[in-house]
Amino acid sequence: MIHKEAIRRVIDSTDHLSGKVFTFTIQSLIIVSLISFSIDTLPDLSLNTKKTLRVIEIITVGIFTLEYVLRITISERKLGFIFSFYGLVDLAAILPFYIASGLDLRAVRVFRLLRLVRILKLFKYSQAIKRFHRALVIAKEELILFGFVAAIMLYLSAVGIYYFENSAQPEQFKSVFHSLWWAVTTLTTVGYGDMYPITAGGKLFTFFVLMIGLGIVAVPTGLIASALSQVRKEDAT
Amino acid sequence: MIHKEAIRRVIDSTDHLSGKVFTFTIQSLIIVSLISFSIDTLPDLSLNTKKTLRVIEIITVGIFTLEYVLRITISERKLGFIFSFYGLVDLAAILPFYIASGLDLRAVRVFRLLRLVRILKLFKYSQAIKRFHRALVIAKEELILFGFVAAIMLYLSAVGIYYFENSAQPEQFKSVFHSLWWAVTTLTTVGYGDMYPITAGGKLFTFFVLMIGLGIVAVPTGLIASALSQVRKEDAT
Amino acid sequence: MIHKEAIRRVIDSTDHLSGKVFTFTIQSLIIVSLISFSIDTLPDLSLNTKKTLRVIEIITVGIFTLEYVLRITISERKLGFIFSFYGLVDLAAILPFYIASGLDLRAVRVFRLLRLVRILKLFKYSQAIKRFHRALVIAKEELILFGFVAAIMLYLSAVGIYYFENSAQPEQFKSVFHSLWWAVTTLTTVGYGDMYPITAGGKLFTFFVLMIGLGIVAVPTGLIASALSQVRKEDAT
Amino acid sequence: MIHKEAIRRVIDSTDHLSGKVFTFTIQSLIIVSLISFSIDTLPDLSLNTKKTLRVIEIITVGIFTLEYVLRITISERKLGFIFSFYGLVDLAAILPFYIASGLDLRAVRVFRLLRLVRILKLFKYSQAIKRFHRALVIAKEELILFGFVAAIMLYLSAVGIYYFENSAQPEQFKSVFHSLWWAVTTLTTVGYGDMYPITAGGKLFTFFVLMIGLGIVAVPTGLIASALSQVRKEDAT
Repeated sequence: MIHKEAIRRVIDSTDHLSGKVFTFTIQSLIIVSLISFSIDTLPDLSLNTKKTLRVIEIITVGIFTLEYVLRITISERKLGFIFSFYGLVDLAAILPFYIASGLDLRAVRVFRLLRLVRILKLFKYSQAIKRFHRALVIAKEELILFGFVAAIMLYLSAVGIYYFENSAQPEQFKSVFHSLWWAVTTLTTVGYGDMYPITAGGKLFTFFVLMIGLGIVAVPTGLIASALSQVRKEDAT
Repeated sequence: MIHKEAIRRVIDSTDHLSGKVFTFTIQSLIIVSLISFSIDTLPDLSLNTKKTLRVIEIITVGIFTLEYVLRITISERKLGFIFSFYGLVDLAAILPFYIASGLDLRAVRVFRLLRLVRILKLFKYSQAIKRFHRALVIAKEELILFGFVAAIMLYLSAVGIYYFENSAQPEQFKSVFHSLWWAVTTLTTVGYGDMYPITAGGKLFTFFVLMIGLGIVAVPTGLIASALSQVRKEDAT
Repeated sequence: MIHKEAIRRVIDSTDHLSGKVFTFTIQSLIIVSLISFSIDTLPDLSLNTKKTLRVIEIITVGIFTLEYVLRITISERKLGFIFSFYGLVDLAAILPFYIASGLDLRAVRVFRLLRLVRILKLFKYSQAIKRFHRALVIAKEELILFGFVAAIMLYLSAVGIYYFENSAQPEQFKSVFHSLWWAVTTLTTVGYGDMYPITAGGKLFTFFVLMIGLGIVAVPTGLIASALSQVRKEDAT
Repeated sequence: MIHKEAIRRVIDSTDHLSGKVFTFTIQSLIIVSLISFSIDTLPDLSLNTKKTLRVIEIITVGIFTLEYVLRITISERKLGFIFSFYGLVDLAAILPFYIASGLDLRAVRVFRLLRLVRILKLFKYSQAIKRFHRALVIAKEELILFGFVAAIMLYLSAVGIYYFENSAQPEQFKSVFHSLWWAVTTLTTVGYGDMYPITAGGKLFTFFVLMIGLGIVAVPTGLIASALSQVRKEDAT
């Protein structure tokens, strides 16, 4: 009979080699699982590929189930683990396989993506994520203010362009909601080119919106960067 | 008879629960009013939807009118309030409803957007907006200089591309004014794709314009961000 | 007979009201001259508009000529002024009018834009431009390095995409030079949409190029901004 | 017989004029070689141009070969140089010419680009590149974290937009891999316009992805810039 303590050492910590190997294996399987999930969305897959993907799914879900059962086994308070955040994530990531196995429920398979949470767990103890947290706390008030102003800016831009362009392009700038899409793609400077003003008034309006709006959308990024470097400096001293 | 003091406590301050509830109600009604305004711009609305929107408009404007009357009632200097900034904003936001009720004057209904000013009022006492003000003061001179240089840059880019592209694309780069639109969408990196150079000279020119211009347009954002973090540091010490 | 000293006070300094009025008039005339120049590029102008523009041109050039003559008159070393930077700029801005008056030489009229230099002169004594200068000096070495690396990056991106896309889109990615245009519009994130990869290899290549290249193109802006705020801090202490 | 020491002084150092001239000549030849390589990709070249390009190639490769042989001659440990990084780069840049001379192997000719490494060597002793190195070390942890989060962000955006748009645009959003291309061009704000959401759900999803994703992609740039200015400050004191 294997001792719980021994299993725990392998699953929960990365102090020993066995723990490192275990964690690395699980992480790799998550990546494999995500890649096979992505390949699965390709149209016109050959029957062979589909079979291979199915086999990979069975194996990975099998191992994830084993891991889940082991984690329950070794935990002192079993219910506590099952209803913990990571317990629920682990369950949600394997359950769809057993429920929807016979059916073709794409939407359900998306739950597999939840395993990404496990990958993020890697950074749990990293200094960088702690500094990032503190940087967010430092810049919190400004970020909220800018978020708010950016939302109002987007809304007003949408209303404005709607009034300028609606009569010239009724199909494109159908309503304030349709114009909001234009406001989002323009103020983030993505500019797909599916909607753009053609009237002189609309173009002039866009110019002013961009002059003011670019700063509002871009400043938060600068704020986080400078807050991060401030935190780093505090740590250094 | 209700005491003025009691009303004032509810309307003007958020110290007591009743005041908080009142402020929150008004803010929510503003949001509701803006959403119904936006839905109203959708084409092909059913008669039922139109009726519902009309009812929502009557109710919200009714409450805003009541609020406006109350604010006049409780103010010491009634004329002072009516001609104050917020007094005029409040009036401008409800007046169009009474004037244009029978008519279909879209342009007039836009005044409803003025109620957004009330939402911004929320930030009146926030530390973040004060810091933002001070950051603007710190970076003022640089911002004016960069604004000026950016304007000249945009103008020169428009003239330059006009000379390079006018003969190749007379329909697109019709005049310096039409080319200005290209300069705006290019230097802000929006790049809709409705206008772009096709001659080798125009492309080379665009390259140089972007190399110099990107910095000019983007530096102000960085300036505001670093001024903001400077202000925060000053506050901390 | 007017004293040279008196004219000099009006033209060269802004200490007295007369000097301020003079400078402001000249600046306004430059703006007027540029606007009329821009209107002139509009196609299908009416004969009346053309006549008005011609009159404006005659008047502004007349005043600029008068200013030029006055400046020569009051300078101690007349040849020194004529061959100074501003002397040449002033001459270059009025000469084309006299030479090309009868002809329709658009290219020559562009020299009028040189008067923009005069507008920039306004900032000659501003603190902001001095700080900007010092910021450039501070960040000089990094800016040169990044400029160099950015150039190599653009070149390698062009060569790479050429190899990936040339066979799939021979009309678009004709040569390394044509691909350079793609590299410029992509790495500056303008993305007009006139050229984009369609092969899987080209798309993957674009992904890596963007991941590395975005930083290289965007970092210099951040460098200038932080150098500027450093200079401001030095001034404050 | 020429002394090794004399050759070494010319080839390896830039202390003396002869060394500077040699280095400058080699650098210029690299540029010439790259330009001729680029011109070679142009379609429909005349026979004369092709001949000229061929002559340029023979001359430059000849000189590079001579330089390579000289470098071997003067090095104390000949094998050490041949198998050093720069030794291999130099060989890889000239070898294809001798192997593929008769054949038309475009892919092989690409190795000429390796000579760019020599140009970068110019910066070997520059302070800027040392500071850049130290800045990368300072910001390393954050850069890795953001790189990781950006990768996950891109992947999740691709999966999300695939679910929203696949049924509406099966040709464009064919699979998660095809959607990844959309995620890359959108989050970097390039926005070619070859793929964009058309469903209301997809547009709303894009909005949220941009709000969160822009920061994740843009913050690293700010981090490098602020780390660089920190290093510069450390050097100044």
